Amino acid sequence: MNPLAARMAEIEPFYAMEIMTLVQKQIDAGRSVISLCVGEPDFPTPRPIVEAGIRALEKGRLPYTAALGLAELRETIARFYAERHGVNVPAQRIIVTSGSSAGLLMVMGAILNPGEQVLMTDPGYPCNRQFVRIVGGEAVGIPVDRTTHYQLTDQLVERHWRANTRAVLVASPANPTGMMIDQASLQAIARRTAKHNGHLIVDEIYHGLTYGVEAHTALAWSDQLFVINSFSKYFNMTGWRLGWMVAPEDCLRDLEKLAQNLYICAPTPAQYAALAAFSPATIAIAEERRHAFAERRNFLLRALREIGFDLPVTPDGAFYLYAGCSRFSEDSHRFAVDLLEATGVAITPGLDFGTNHPQRHVRIAYTTGLPNLEQAVERIRGFVGTR
Amino acid sequence: MNPLAARMAEIEPFYAMEIMTLVQKQIDAGRSVISLCVGEPDFPTPRPIVEAGIRALEKGRLPYTAALGLAELRETIARFYAERHGVNVPAQRIIVTSGSSAGLLMVMGAILNPGEQVLMTDPGYPCNRQFVRIVGGEAVGIPVDRTTHYQLTDQLVERHWRANTRAVLVASPANPTGMMIDQASLQAIARRTAKHNGHLIVDEIYHGLTYGVEAHTALAWSDQLFVINSFSKYFNMTGWRLGWMVAPEDCLRDLEKLAQNLYICAPTPAQYAALAAFSPATIAIAEERRHAFAERRNFLLRALREIGFDLPVTPDGAFYLYAGCSRFSEDSHRFAVDLLEATGVAITPGLDFGTNHPQRHVRIAYTTGLPNLEQAVERIRGFVGTR
Repeated sequence: MNPLAARMAEIEPFYAMEIMTLVQKQIDAGRSVISLCVGEPDFPTPRPIVEAGIRALEKGRLPYTAALGLAELRETIARFYAERHGVNVPAQRIIVTSGSSAGLLMVMGAILNPGEQVLMTDPGYPCNRQFVRIVGGEAVGIPVDRTTHYQLTDQLVERHWRANTRAVLVASPANPTGMMIDQASLQAIARRTAKHNGHLIVDEIYHGLTYGVEAHTALAWSDQLFVINSFSKYFNMTGWRLGWMVAPEDCLRDLEKLAQNLYICAPTPAQYAALAAFSPATIAIAEERRHAFAERRNFLLRALREIGFDLPVTPDGAFYLYAGCSRFSEDSHRFAVDLLEATGVAITPGLDFGTNHPQRHVRIAYTTGLPNLEQAVERIRGFVGTR
Repeated sequence: MNPLAARMAEIEPFYAMEIMTLVQKQIDAGRSVISLCVGEPDFPTPRPIVEAGIRALEKGRLPYTAALGLAELRETIARFYAERHGVNVPAQRIIVTSGSSAGLLMVMGAILNPGEQVLMTDPGYPCNRQFVRIVGGEAVGIPVDRTTHYQLTDQLVERHWRANTRAVLVASPANPTGMMIDQASLQAIARRTAKHNGHLIVDEIYHGLTYGVEAHTALAWSDQLFVINSFSKYFNMTGWRLGWMVAPEDCLRDLEKLAQNLYICAPTPAQYAALAAFSPATIAIAEERRHAFAERRNFLLRALREIGFDLPVTPDGAFYLYAGCSRFSEDSHRFAVDLLEATGVAITPGLDFGTNHPQRHVRIAYTTGLPNLEQAVERIRGFVGTR
């Protein structure tokens, strides 16, 4: 083969997907597998959203929408900010995207020159590094731990800021830790970033999925940052590939050019379906599921701590526990593979999320029901008891 | 605002979209508008595809698929190559993408280091330049004209090849010219590119939409090139955002990593719907429409030539005529705006397609029915008669 681009050697495989391949082999062999390794809930798309999608399909004509999205959907999202968060976000600043993936790529494309850096947490969502790399930027993972609830702080940002740093990316609640950043800390980071003429990107895709605490959008106190959101998690629309972004007003024309060129538009069926996402009927379903997630988190957190996993801070949201496993293994990848082979329980090794002691951590997703989680806990307990 | 990336200044707006904004103003003012400016047919998605989509939605659960696409869809596409083209393309080399847009970005990401060049025609599809730019590459538009049927040739490729040239992109039939490349010429380009250890990308998204001539896939004679295809045009699935790519076997692992990171997967509803795209019922609908397009092309080509537009070569396919308008104006943008304001007929100025005499050309899309085209021709005739 002719040579590929040098960046390809730097792009890591998804270890979670390798585990999924092993899972499939186990399933094919007729074994009972409990998968706690993918960031995709077990709930179907809420019925009102599906029905809105079917109505759109029935009409038959599903043309491109405007590059920034259906006007009606952008207005619906604006109303959601007003009604649920009490925040005024003009519809024109809301860009409908092909999943939050598209929002992240467009932001990086719009703000990063080759060689410029973006600060983010390590551990963190693995794809964030690749959105930066594909446009020639450099993702700088800042090691975080329990002392800052696995989030960045003003001090950490200042310590890592260089002449070629252009932006800070904060996810709250975060994947893989489930931790939120407190608003005072985020505001301090925003001030620090502004002082350096840098950009702040806030990933709010797990908003709505917080337990015992509410997530407040950063849009409440600034219109000079990029907010990334998604219909995938709270609204259970993973496969539909739909998200949105809120951008500062004077970037809109540039983001529109990127959207036109790189995507044309987000999927039209998904956009029509999502018009029903903010209806009271859908929200009622989503909130019921949120309670189910809270129960799952509480059960799993208690059980894993009892078994001996290191979970020093209670995660606020998302549907992940990022657990220290060094009491059982200093090689979390081996640990995950052995656990799967011995018990059929699939978890994700820390390797996917950065270079900050990944071998001592695993991510466990509570994207399956309590009975499954109870059984998984029993199997894990038995497995570590033999070590 | 804090500064954006330098590349944003190089990314041109879509002039077609600016014309569309003027179109909307005319419609809002109650005028009769005939739009010949967007590359999207007037036909709805064929009913069998819509019904397959509805069945998938009815099931309710629409999770992520594998990053490379539903296995069943990849196999269906492989069967299509075997049955329609008599070409053996293993399903594992077929990657389902979020429109051909995603395929083009992934190819450029996989093969281009910063500063490396891709050769392509000028005029050409405007987004191609941006897929190259976003990964730090340089798009080199090679001026083409009637003498080569607006396509590249072996000689042109050789003349423009530099030490930092990495790839050649050929579209056949091409946007905006509708011209095909003959296979002997493409094979010569393939040999030339291989000699330089470069990559060849062949855009086949208008396959199926050729009139009086069949398009043959380059996969018939090489498995060492990238083929980009789409469900948007022949299958009328524009808004669904679904396409596919065929890649050399030893690139698949790298493309999978890019797909996982940049897209997660193509839209799940669209993938299930597309399972019906190759059914005899859908193909019958698509072929009927193809005949309609052929009639439209024949009518419009004759009429525009009569009026005095310069159309020296008969386009083979797609649904565009790229017409010289210098008999009427040396400023095609002004000409398009004036025509729209005077008559309500919307066409696209050459500016969108490159820097090769765009001011002397307009693109006219026959994406509306014959009665509309007849009326448009009468209005154009009247308009140019007054000049």
